[in-house]
Amino acid sequence: MDPGPIEDALVRIVGRAHALDAPDHRAGYEVDWTGQFRGQARMVVRPASTAEASACVAACARRGVPLVAQGGNTGLVGGSVPDGTGDAVVLSTRRLTDIGTVDQPGAQITVGAGVTLQGLNEHLRPHRLELGIDLAARGSATVGGMAATNAGGIHVIKHGSMRRRISGIEAVLGDGAVVSHLAGLDKDNTGYDLSSLLCGSEGTLGVITAVRLRLVPMAVERVTALTAWAGMRPMIEGLAQLRRALPALEAAEYMVRPGVELVLDRYQLSDPFPAPYPAYLLIEVGAEHDPTSEFATAIAALEGVRDVAVALDGQARERLWALRELHTEALSAAGPPRKYDVTVPPVSIPDFLDQVVAELVAGTTCHHFGHLADGNVHLNVLGVGDRPDAELDEIDGRVLGLVARHGGSISAEHGIGRAKRRWLGLSRSAAEISAFRAIKTGLDPAGIMNPGVLLPDLG
Amino acid sequence: MDPGPIEDALVRIVGRAHALDAPDHRAGYEVDWTGQFRGQARMVVRPASTAEASACVAACARRGVPLVAQGGNTGLVGGSVPDGTGDAVVLSTRRLTDIGTVDQPGAQITVGAGVTLQGLNEHLRPHRLELGIDLAARGSATVGGMAATNAGGIHVIKHGSMRRRISGIEAVLGDGAVVSHLAGLDKDNTGYDLSSLLCGSEGTLGVITAVRLRLVPMAVERVTALTAWAGMRPMIEGLAQLRRALPALEAAEYMVRPGVELVLDRYQLSDPFPAPYPAYLLIEVGAEHDPTSEFATAIAALEGVRDVAVALDGQARERLWALRELHTEALSAAGPPRKYDVTVPPVSIPDFLDQVVAELVAGTTCHHFGHLADGNVHLNVLGVGDRPDAELDEIDGRVLGLVARHGGSISAEHGIGRAKRRWLGLSRSAAEISAFRAIKTGLDPAGIMNPGVLLPDLG
Repeated sequence: MDPGPIEDALVRIVGRAHALDAPDHRAGYEVDWTGQFRGQARMVVRPASTAEASACVAACARRGVPLVAQGGNTGLVGGSVPDGTGDAVVLSTRRLTDIGTVDQPGAQITVGAGVTLQGLNEHLRPHRLELGIDLAARGSATVGGMAATNAGGIHVIKHGSMRRRISGIEAVLGDGAVVSHLAGLDKDNTGYDLSSLLCGSEGTLGVITAVRLRLVPMAVERVTALTAWAGMRPMIEGLAQLRRALPALEAAEYMVRPGVELVLDRYQLSDPFPAPYPAYLLIEVGAEHDPTSEFATAIAALEGVRDVAVALDGQARERLWALRELHTEALSAAGPPRKYDVTVPPVSIPDFLDQVVAELVAGTTCHHFGHLADGNVHLNVLGVGDRPDAELDEIDGRVLGLVARHGGSISAEHGIGRAKRRWLGLSRSAAEISAFRAIKTGLDPAGIMNPGVLLPDLG
Repeated sequence: MDPGPIEDALVRIVGRAHALDAPDHRAGYEVDWTGQFRGQARMVVRPASTAEASACVAACARRGVPLVAQGGNTGLVGGSVPDGTGDAVVLSTRRLTDIGTVDQPGAQITVGAGVTLQGLNEHLRPHRLELGIDLAARGSATVGGMAATNAGGIHVIKHGSMRRRISGIEAVLGDGAVVSHLAGLDKDNTGYDLSSLLCGSEGTLGVITAVRLRLVPMAVERVTALTAWAGMRPMIEGLAQLRRALPALEAAEYMVRPGVELVLDRYQLSDPFPAPYPAYLLIEVGAEHDPTSEFATAIAALEGVRDVAVALDGQARERLWALRELHTEALSAAGPPRKYDVTVPPVSIPDFLDQVVAELVAGTTCHHFGHLADGNVHLNVLGVGDRPDAELDEIDGRVLGLVARHGGSISAEHGIGRAKRRWLGLSRSAAEISAFRAIKTGLDPAGIMNPGVLLPDLG
């Protein structure tokens, strides 16, 4: 029997008000926030419950209609926007905003996929707990999207990425079946770990509708310092020493002089030090009790450091963080930059960077900064704006090829999405990609979940 | 073309000396260490490398011959021994004993699946690192088996189970393909998390051949105390208080008076306290530096505790641990006990235990002890030894049904294996089990990997 048009079915499930088909209602869901990925949706549906989400997916599966799950739409690799065909339905999880009771002794909570990171942390504040993950898009990024992309951010060094913060997931698989594992038990060896599998699957296996989260004690006291170094190599050694001395270290963000100069110039800021230094490491310790004395001891013992600026109040702290956080904006203004979010084992970072510079074509400049402890380098190549696609592809291939040769990952925290799927083979073997496909076929037999994302085209 | 007998193929791959077919050579691989699970293997193969293991699996897959992966064979649910048909090949990973270089700054190491937990920790000692997981079978249990079963143990409260300690896995999937992801990068969002999926899959998706492990600083100083309580409820509240005060708490093992009396009587030990108490909590803090003063402060502030015995030296520590560790042996001597390894959310444990006692049939006694912080209760029912299977099944169903009604897990750390697969539906929904089957079919299309384990029979 003909199941009838998908649009009618979706309207019946979520109601007219939440099945958006007018172009201006859909528009905000069809483009990512950077404006780089733009597509067209057949319809945008906003289910109010897991049951509605399940019915939407089942309706799409029955008709072979592709479906793109979307949370806060703050991703950077095009994984949450439809392609240009106008075939796909966008399923927005933003109305799934239930917040469960805080389990204080177990330090866990269950929340709907549509709850934002900021909303979650505000809810947790009176309980003196927090998620332990922080990222710039906190006001818009949803926990569902963060789970689907295994989001990282600046505190991974201390608390890990989302996968480590998740103790269970509820999701709708590709056939509309709901799998729910939200008891949050610390010990539970009853079959395959679907939660870890769904975490980081970028909407290609199912739509995450709720998440059980492990929380950490709220860091009420923070100490921040900017340290200056003669180069990347002594800075990497210094960080290894700091990590041993300060288990509460929760951020270790590095910058180099050219990027810092770009920021100082553009925003007319004053240099935090009387002299320029080749490399800088912004470090922060967060704790339940004042960590100043441990911090001071560790800094005093640090070998190879050239200068230190400690933030003694909130304003000073913001000034130090601005140096790091304004990099993205300053680079965009000088750009447009070609961006790479990669991991390279920390000891190999200096060699990797030397080789990147050597391999880049004339007329380009390479800026970099990142999360040093994780080896997560944010590379920005300037001076490529108006080159033809084939040339850009070649630059991508050279940079990401170097990452692979250094045993790194072509995507540290942003994921693969549409942007990097043709390069997935640099980080994962043919056998691994075959295994991904086998799992995908098993959980999404109709192949409707976010096609064109993560998995490379066959052949 | 007929591929020829499997035995010949396996001999060609691993050599005559490591393809065991004589009954007395096979015998040790055909029974688990408790003697409860006993089967028969067609042949036992001991590959010396991942390549040999891959060739063995491919040879079995081509012929549809079932294959049981086996590490130290210390499991408790029959997951690593063949069934009684004599059809299956046992693949022992014990010759996969390569140990990689210790990555000191990253605190990681790659080791072959056949390395034992004790062997690993001995290798790590000079580096002042350890795995962070400890269990009684440390001398025999292999890291491969521990990964395949997501092993837990007494330190889960601090360092998590194996899944949290693994940063990558190399494995042979059901068609012989090798997937290897051993770079150990902290940030790596390049596709599905096969390592977490294989961890805990009990040999039903693939044979784990090597593991990349996250290490923790070796706890060189330990303080241990036995605390006495008026009952389970105040003890559970006291533990919540202790966990807030002592982040370095690495063990919180509970016992109750009847079990302690059984141990004291059988081994002629003296009571650690002048009076009997209904409940006891054995707590231990491990740290790189002497934690005695924090420990003393936390104990002094503890509400509801009736008495405390602190171990001031190694001998005293062993005496306290003996009370807990001799439970298994004392119960076996009084038994045979019907054993359940379950998780119940800690706040529900007292109600759960009351109901278990109320539902048990006349003539049985219920002993229990376990890892209180994780809600992991080891239930031992005595007085059921000579009952018919149908009656034992009914007792299993009642106990495990109560676990499920309290939102618990029917297997905390031992896994499902052969022993519990008919009960899997109490902890996992039909949709989840269907998803497991879809994944299993995708990664093991010939259905040769450990059939009869974990997944319940269809229909």
